[in-house]
Amino acid sequence: MSAIRQTNSKSLMLFSGRAFPELAEEIAGHLGVTPTPTAAYEFANGELFVRFEESVRGCDAFVVQSHTAPINTWLMEQLIMVDALKRASAKRITVVAPFFPYARQDKKHRGREPISARLVADMFKTAGADRLMAVDLHTAQIQGFFDGPVDHLFALDLLVDHVRARWSDRDLTVVSPDAGRVRVAERWTDKLGGTPLAFIHKTRDPLRPNEVKANRVVGEVEGRVCILVDDMIDTGGTIVKAAETLFAAGAADVIVTATHGVLSGPAIDRLKNSRVSEVIVTNTLPIPAERQFDKLTVLSIAPLLARAIKEVFEDGSVTSLFGGAS
Amino acid sequence: MSAIRQTNSKSLMLFSGRAFPELAEEIAGHLGVTPTPTAAYEFANGELFVRFEESVRGCDAFVVQSHTAPINTWLMEQLIMVDALKRASAKRITVVAPFFPYARQDKKHRGREPISARLVADMFKTAGADRLMAVDLHTAQIQGFFDGPVDHLFALDLLVDHVRARWSDRDLTVVSPDAGRVRVAERWTDKLGGTPLAFIHKTRDPLRPNEVKANRVVGEVEGRVCILVDDMIDTGGTIVKAAETLFAAGAADVIVTATHGVLSGPAIDRLKNSRVSEVIVTNTLPIPAERQFDKLTVLSIAPLLARAIKEVFEDGSVTSLFGGAS
Amino acid sequence: MSAIRQTNSKSLMLFSGRAFPELAEEIAGHLGVTPTPTAAYEFANGELFVRFEESVRGCDAFVVQSHTAPINTWLMEQLIMVDALKRASAKRITVVAPFFPYARQDKKHRGREPISARLVADMFKTAGADRLMAVDLHTAQIQGFFDGPVDHLFALDLLVDHVRARWSDRDLTVVSPDAGRVRVAERWTDKLGGTPLAFIHKTRDPLRPNEVKANRVVGEVEGRVCILVDDMIDTGGTIVKAAETLFAAGAADVIVTATHGVLSGPAIDRLKNSRVSEVIVTNTLPIPAERQFDKLTVLSIAPLLARAIKEVFEDGSVTSLFGGAS
Amino acid sequence: MSAIRQTNSKSLMLFSGRAFPELAEEIAGHLGVTPTPTAAYEFANGELFVRFEESVRGCDAFVVQSHTAPINTWLMEQLIMVDALKRASAKRITVVAPFFPYARQDKKHRGREPISARLVADMFKTAGADRLMAVDLHTAQIQGFFDGPVDHLFALDLLVDHVRARWSDRDLTVVSPDAGRVRVAERWTDKLGGTPLAFIHKTRDPLRPNEVKANRVVGEVEGRVCILVDDMIDTGGTIVKAAETLFAAGAADVIVTATHGVLSGPAIDRLKNSRVSEVIVTNTLPIPAERQFDKLTVLSIAPLLARAIKEVFEDGSVTSLFGGAS
Amino acid sequence: MSAIRQTNSKSLMLFSGRAFPELAEEIAGHLGVTPTPTAAYEFANGELFVRFEESVRGCDAFVVQSHTAPINTWLMEQLIMVDALKRASAKRITVVAPFFPYARQDKKHRGREPISARLVADMFKTAGADRLMAVDLHTAQIQGFFDGPVDHLFALDLLVDHVRARWSDRDLTVVSPDAGRVRVAERWTDKLGGTPLAFIHKTRDPLRPNEVKANRVVGEVEGRVCILVDDMIDTGGTIVKAAETLFAAGAADVIVTATHGVLSGPAIDRLKNSRVSEVIVTNTLPIPAERQFDKLTVLSIAPLLARAIKEVFEDGSVTSLFGGAS
Amino acid sequence: MSAIRQTNSKSLMLFSGRAFPELAEEIAGHLGVTPTPTAAYEFANGELFVRFEESVRGCDAFVVQSHTAPINTWLMEQLIMVDALKRASAKRITVVAPFFPYARQDKKHRGREPISARLVADMFKTAGADRLMAVDLHTAQIQGFFDGPVDHLFALDLLVDHVRARWSDRDLTVVSPDAGRVRVAERWTDKLGGTPLAFIHKTRDPLRPNEVKANRVVGEVEGRVCILVDDMIDTGGTIVKAAETLFAAGAADVIVTATHGVLSGPAIDRLKNSRVSEVIVTNTLPIPAERQFDKLTVLSIAPLLARAIKEVFEDGSVTSLFGGAS
Repeated sequence: MSAIRQTNSKSLMLFSGRAFPELAEEIAGHLGVTPTPTAAYEFANGELFVRFEESVRGCDAFVVQSHTAPINTWLMEQLIMVDALKRASAKRITVVAPFFPYARQDKKHRGREPISARLVADMFKTAGADRLMAVDLHTAQIQGFFDGPVDHLFALDLLVDHVRARWSDRDLTVVSPDAGRVRVAERWTDKLGGTPLAFIHKTRDPLRPNEVKANRVVGEVEGRVCILVDDMIDTGGTIVKAAETLFAAGAADVIVTATHGVLSGPAIDRLKNSRVSEVIVTNTLPIPAERQFDKLTVLSIAPLLARAIKEVFEDGSVTSLFGGAS
Repeated sequence: MSAIRQTNSKSLMLFSGRAFPELAEEIAGHLGVTPTPTAAYEFANGELFVRFEESVRGCDAFVVQSHTAPINTWLMEQLIMVDALKRASAKRITVVAPFFPYARQDKKHRGREPISARLVADMFKTAGADRLMAVDLHTAQIQGFFDGPVDHLFALDLLVDHVRARWSDRDLTVVSPDAGRVRVAERWTDKLGGTPLAFIHKTRDPLRPNEVKANRVVGEVEGRVCILVDDMIDTGGTIVKAAETLFAAGAADVIVTATHGVLSGPAIDRLKNSRVSEVIVTNTLPIPAERQFDKLTVLSIAPLLARAIKEVFEDGSVTSLFGGAS
Repeated sequence: MSAIRQTNSKSLMLFSGRAFPELAEEIAGHLGVTPTPTAAYEFANGELFVRFEESVRGCDAFVVQSHTAPINTWLMEQLIMVDALKRASAKRITVVAPFFPYARQDKKHRGREPISARLVADMFKTAGADRLMAVDLHTAQIQGFFDGPVDHLFALDLLVDHVRARWSDRDLTVVSPDAGRVRVAERWTDKLGGTPLAFIHKTRDPLRPNEVKANRVVGEVEGRVCILVDDMIDTGGTIVKAAETLFAAGAADVIVTATHGVLSGPAIDRLKNSRVSEVIVTNTLPIPAERQFDKLTVLSIAPLLARAIKEVFEDGSVTSLFGGAS
Repeated sequence: MSAIRQTNSKSLMLFSGRAFPELAEEIAGHLGVTPTPTAAYEFANGELFVRFEESVRGCDAFVVQSHTAPINTWLMEQLIMVDALKRASAKRITVVAPFFPYARQDKKHRGREPISARLVADMFKTAGADRLMAVDLHTAQIQGFFDGPVDHLFALDLLVDHVRARWSDRDLTVVSPDAGRVRVAERWTDKLGGTPLAFIHKTRDPLRPNEVKANRVVGEVEGRVCILVDDMIDTGGTIVKAAETLFAAGAADVIVTATHGVLSGPAIDRLKNSRVSEVIVTNTLPIPAERQFDKLTVLSIAPLLARAIKEVFEDGSVTSLFGGAS
Repeated sequence: MSAIRQTNSKSLMLFSGRAFPELAEEIAGHLGVTPTPTAAYEFANGELFVRFEESVRGCDAFVVQSHTAPINTWLMEQLIMVDALKRASAKRITVVAPFFPYARQDKKHRGREPISARLVADMFKTAGADRLMAVDLHTAQIQGFFDGPVDHLFALDLLVDHVRARWSDRDLTVVSPDAGRVRVAERWTDKLGGTPLAFIHKTRDPLRPNEVKANRVVGEVEGRVCILVDDMIDTGGTIVKAAETLFAAGAADVIVTATHGVLSGPAIDRLKNSRVSEVIVTNTLPIPAERQFDKLTVLSIAPLLARAIKEVFEDGSVTSLFGGAS
Repeated sequence: MSAIRQTNSKSLMLFSGRAFPELAEEIAGHLGVTPTPTAAYEFANGELFVRFEESVRGCDAFVVQSHTAPINTWLMEQLIMVDALKRASAKRITVVAPFFPYARQDKKHRGREPISARLVADMFKTAGADRLMAVDLHTAQIQGFFDGPVDHLFALDLLVDHVRARWSDRDLTVVSPDAGRVRVAERWTDKLGGTPLAFIHKTRDPLRPNEVKANRVVGEVEGRVCILVDDMIDTGGTIVKAAETLFAAGAADVIVTATHGVLSGPAIDRLKNSRVSEVIVTNTLPIPAERQFDKLTVLSIAPLLARAIKEVFEDGSVTSLFGGAS
């Protein structure tokens, strides 16, 4: 006989960047694995180094990174991990980026701008990624930036369940903080069983398109608890201003919810000092203990990620996690 | 001397598919060229054939096609033209697709769907296109689907100027026909100097996400002339139903405007028979004389395309056509 | 342990475009599977939509389409299916195109023409196809247009067996309808045990290369039954004219055989009204009941395709289906 | 001002491999340039080295190589030259391969064979070639193997003119040496004004497809001067056997013509000792003085190549060299 | 006439990242241009944004960045600039990276490591770079990591001239700080006219390959001024230890020279406090005033970069800058 | 059920080029397989042909070639084998090139040179190789030339073990024949337990950089046995001259060792006639019996290659073969 024949097996290995190892560990716990031991450090001039301490040959690799600040460092670390896995003969490499970096720059707002989200998708491909997994992409079109399968997960059920449990005895209105995300708010109203819908209309002078002249509420909010929904809260400026506009328009209460708690710079103070009653986010990004505050609720995204990774590894169906048929 | 040296020159050539040659001719007229003579026909089994009747070697080629029905035929024709230009040594090839085909399938709405708009962008690249030019992409993210420069033109000024000239003495409200395009309507309100904004909120049963339970108007429309704005009108079903909802909510009048007049199937009858006062579109897609009707206004997009092509050829600025600096 | 390890399994799934679902079902029957349930339809403006109704994750996908008119629609449908499979994490995707579209445009006949067959091969690759399977390519070189494995199947045995069973008691001559396909006819003579060979020589004026001046028979046909062999019959013009030339040269009878029954436009009438005794094709393309006629014989290609798919799935040998060693 | 602006110029540079420098020099003479001085040599273990001795930055490079034995050495030399040009910032690189290497392996004749002609085309692309130029490709489909423009030149006029000048007072029949190239012979009959056409039919046992059982002439050759036409003469075995078959069938005389005089191994002796009256080839491949013989005529392909290079450089029309319109 | 024809011109534009704008300005001064006005800033979560404030259509773009800490931020900024230039139709894009980032990770030192320098080269390509320009790459092989032209510049003449001017009246020995860079030191001895050569031999226990057991000087250093040459000084640990070893071996004096003054972390203190007499570097990386010290000499690399950019733009010869013929 | 499901298996197949079949057979013996029967020959003009005589569908293919003279022929043969495997549906293809061809041209030594080693790596990729395996690459950076996994094996242990067994009772000094490879010699000293280190310093006139003016020994060699270590011995000129320099400097004895015994042209005579006591190489390249000589020791590399292939096939660890952890 001229060939050696063997039964084929496959193995799932989980890799974690250094941005938020607790998330990877939580995912690993749900899966019943441990993250692969990895040496990773920074040289004095900021160059990163990564080396895996176990053989990864032939594995089905899932590389988890949380793209918090310093975001370019963590992005580069993940790219280098992918490169190292490719060169070490991993069989398949899935980048797990719960918060997809640069998702907001998903188009040229004006001429001579980059489309950084496409650039990031291409860099993952170039480094050697076969697949991507992300939660609540800023726009769903970003799936199309990657030339390969993207598992797009939704935190909607997780967030809605929490809101329903805590606030469903009140008269709710779902509110989009701007005109561009009304569709997302509409999905919330459906899940909540047909609550009213509103949004904040920003008027601009066409000669100064970057300056907002006024915020007006369009829709019914008076005397109601407003659920302000967005995909992410960065500096909190927009969302806090939206809350104020809602209170000015007679809202009884305002709660704020978003998948991604970026919470940069002044965000914590703004939210703490606002009249908002609750701020609900998931842990796609780390929120260190010292930045947490009373009215902040952080829901864990790890169980969802773990289930999706399991479906991918076992050739099951990720769609089924969100009520899709089969 | 071991080399021959010559001053370099460049030449602009315009190519037209057969879907809507009148548009290419109008563009050519504005540019002062004639479309390059081209033999194009269909074999009995539907296979297409194209051959250019003049040398195209070294030219800066602009290939204009209008993606009307039968859309796959016209798409394939344009791809074949690009392939022939590449193989005939054109120096640079710009695909001019005023209405970008398959733009609505720009994401997976559910699992196991294609992202056809990305596929189309990739096929243009594969055939040999260096650049794309399009008008009012369904979502701006589609620019990021193409790995190269995209000139994204806007018909907003053209449409607003017409509306302003004819309707500005009335009390206007700009209305988005659904939650997903409120941002576009917001741009209209800015251009019109701060008119109110409204949208149609569709409620759905979460167990039957494809069925709309009810249409509600969110925003102020009573007694006002509603400008229903969308990027395209296909079968007219959504837009006519939106108009009815607006009338039911007390609108004084409704006018409908969109960049792309797809006007498939029942669209003409629906619009003719509706209470809508005016329907305004551009000619990114052909509307044959027999399908035109009294209250339909068709504005020509050709001057804008010609100006953009000229800027591209002369290394000018397309951004400047839309009020961008320099 | 840091990894989960599992035994690997693989699954064959069959997908069918809408051009000729009966062929896919026949193949599926031979394989003992059912085509994967698929939602596919056309929007009013002709844009296509496809969605698979079962998880396809990790499968070995075979996507069958029959490239009949409207050929660009069916080609685009298949490309979209491949894109959807790629994005849904199919493990391997084989395009099954029994009649390869645009195969006749496999070279530039003159300057400034496309090479559409290469374009089609590249588009399949771009969409995500890993492999191709086709029957009797117009020229075998088309295999080289695809950057990957191509399973090239031959209908020769199927057709020869039929001819032998029915006509071997007569004096046969195999005839090529033009100078370009004499090699194919030669293969027939070998299979039939050394019958004479002839072809139709077309003379042209070098100044008008597209006009045929005269048809002359080269070879021995008088008093013999002529088997006119070609890879496809499109409008039937060439083949019927060839038959007339043969009768004029004294042929006793003429039968016509080809792998691909394109049978566009006037083909049916031309063949019915001709003096040809039998027309033999396979069902690589659908021939609806109303276009069939008495002297037409349609042999099923499905068993061959099913066997080839099985060999591919099981890592067997496709070569062995055609008498190749091992 | 923030930019420096200059008028653009372009320069043609010619590069020659070491296989047949006389051909490049002859082309250069027609163009009025000299081949760029190049250091090229072989290391003791056969590794090749190339370095250009003048700056090539920004040039329009034409790299001429003649793919004679040792063919892999000359192919590799040309690839290395292209790589060096790419890395030295040549603006555009055209590979000039008058005899395209491995053209005969343009398909899988049986399973598990390579398609070496596609591999060669891809390697040229990988090395950095933007364009290809070749004479009389073994099959025209090879144009489709390269992802870019191919200038396909024809020696037909050159050969026909010579034959007409010398033999047109005789009764001519054009003969294809096998069934696969009858179409080429047909083009000769058209050019010669409608001479008869014949070919050699080889019969094979289907169980031993590689062994020819018999050669039969199909067509009219008795008492006529047969022009045996092929694209190349390699060892001369086929062509000399064809000539014998023709004499046996009563031919008055036989002349042999081909674009490419490969003339390997026993070719010279076979042709010299045959009854063939004249052997006509071009110098796409070198034929050293000591291998030339009385009845061999070598026509120079250099003027045609020079004219084609000039058209390419000046954005003229190569098609026009062969009577194509414009 | 069907085409518009124009004389072609080209324009050089210089772009500067924010890491070290003074270097770009110095280069611009030598060229007689100003860096193109560019808006660039960081979002609160660290995501970068870039927009050019002038049209860049058709320009020959040179994008200068200095890869100092935070290196991943500056690398990402440059990638985003390249992406924006590509999408804004720049004609050609040259990345100018005087200190190539991640150059030290140019190979796998052990299994399961990345090759980050190749990854960086690929990311530049993916973003849209056509060419690279760098000074004294850590290893010259990095040129081969980029699929396109690389202009590799050498600071050797600049450094040697300075050393010769100041130290040539002493007895010099050129010393490599480790076994891996003796070849670079050898080039110095040639330039200095044949001074002796030495290196520091580090011995290791094969079981602990990362720990150095001892440093020994190989070569003649007693009573001589040792020129310790390296491509970069990072934390200064190696070089200061090498200097101590040389003094211990009887060196009269030690001067240290390197192209790239990374000077991270403790480097300044180590060098200041050492017995080294002079430290000579170039400004490929910024050294802020507060980190400069008495015995540090910083030579400007800007004139060399400006000359190289000019040669590239004018299709001259970069090789000629380093004494290469023509 | 709509799918067929099967347990997956995998099979290792070994393929051998014709350059040195004995090596492949030796490897096969260690693995317990036989090389796959392959038809391979050369046409009269030097074009190569390859066909596998067994089905290779789905196999894990290892293609062994030894790149000896005529090196371009053997390189092309291996490329053609890879192309044929790709087209015949091999699942994974690993190129085994114990001596990587063109490794010495791994950078541009001066302007306008190729980087042939990168070209070769790209050609392997283009042909269809997924992975590379090589022994002692001329520089480790060549790993980064290939876009995929490279298994880089080291012969150091094999060579050191032999030297230790035979020469360890003498006073040894490890010597690098030039300044560029001192690092390799340093690795030897570590393995040998800390022997002294020396190298040959070549001085050049900066105006004539290709001419060596003088060879000087740097380091302690007097009265010692010098182990001259290099990666390859080509014509033997450098190494024999180095040996002479060592004897002139008082060396007691000189032994020469290298991984790759290229031994071109005059190498055998030079080494035989030199005062060198032993020449030790491995059989990465064939050394025919008639070229072997008394003081030549050839160690077999086959066991190492076999072990590495086994680890790759079984998803083990190649790193572990060289003492790397896990």
